[in-house]
Amino acid sequence: MANLSRERSQPDAPAVAGEAAAELLRGLSPDWRSEEGRLRREYRLRGFGEPVALAVRIALLAEREDHHPELRLGYGHLEVELTTHSAGGLTRNDFILAAKIDELG
Amino acid sequence: MANLSRERSQPDAPAVAGEAAAELLRGLSPDWRSEEGRLRREYRLRGFGEPVALAVRIALLAEREDHHPELRLGYGHLEVELTTHSAGGLTRNDFILAAKIDELG
Repeated sequence: MANLSRERSQPDAPAVAGEAAAELLRGLSPDWRSEEGRLRREYRLRGFGEPVALAVRIALLAEREDHHPELRLGYGHLEVELTTHSAGGLTRNDFILAAKIDELG
Repeated sequence: MANLSRERSQPDAPAVAGEAAAELLRGLSPDWRSEEGRLRREYRLRGFGEPVALAVRIALLAEREDHHPELRLGYGHLEVELTTHSAGGLTRNDFILAAKIDELG
């Protein structure tokens, strides 16, 4: 299993699908779902401060990787959605960012 | 016109609807839409940093008012949604927070 969290996002990464995507998905927390060319993870958290704090930590990772998620947050929850618009679906970059998000705990 | 941005949110604020809600809406930026018991505003912003920064500023306001929005953000955009779950719709608190958000520019 590749250690995705140690990799860096690459420009112009090609789309991944099928067994290659399934193998990459197995390297992530089981909380991630792959649906319609996107990776999604939902967090149930305490109050408003925890979702905001996690969103900011994810935002900093995203800037470092130059790969940007959609984030939805409110009292008690945060949802993260990853895709690569330029590839029209998932690339290895999405799995790399997901693996780094997993390491935030 | 009440200067909503100078008010503070109140616990157990009652629901507002009809002409009372329409009058409060006129006190906000025209970018706010009132739909299905919610106030919504969409921002088109630059890059990822601007949406994240505005979301954090709104989050700090929300904590101060103890009234919490739903925020959705990604590259180039931020959406804010306000409602009062305990009232099953809009209360004056939603308009107060919206007015304070407007003052962020």
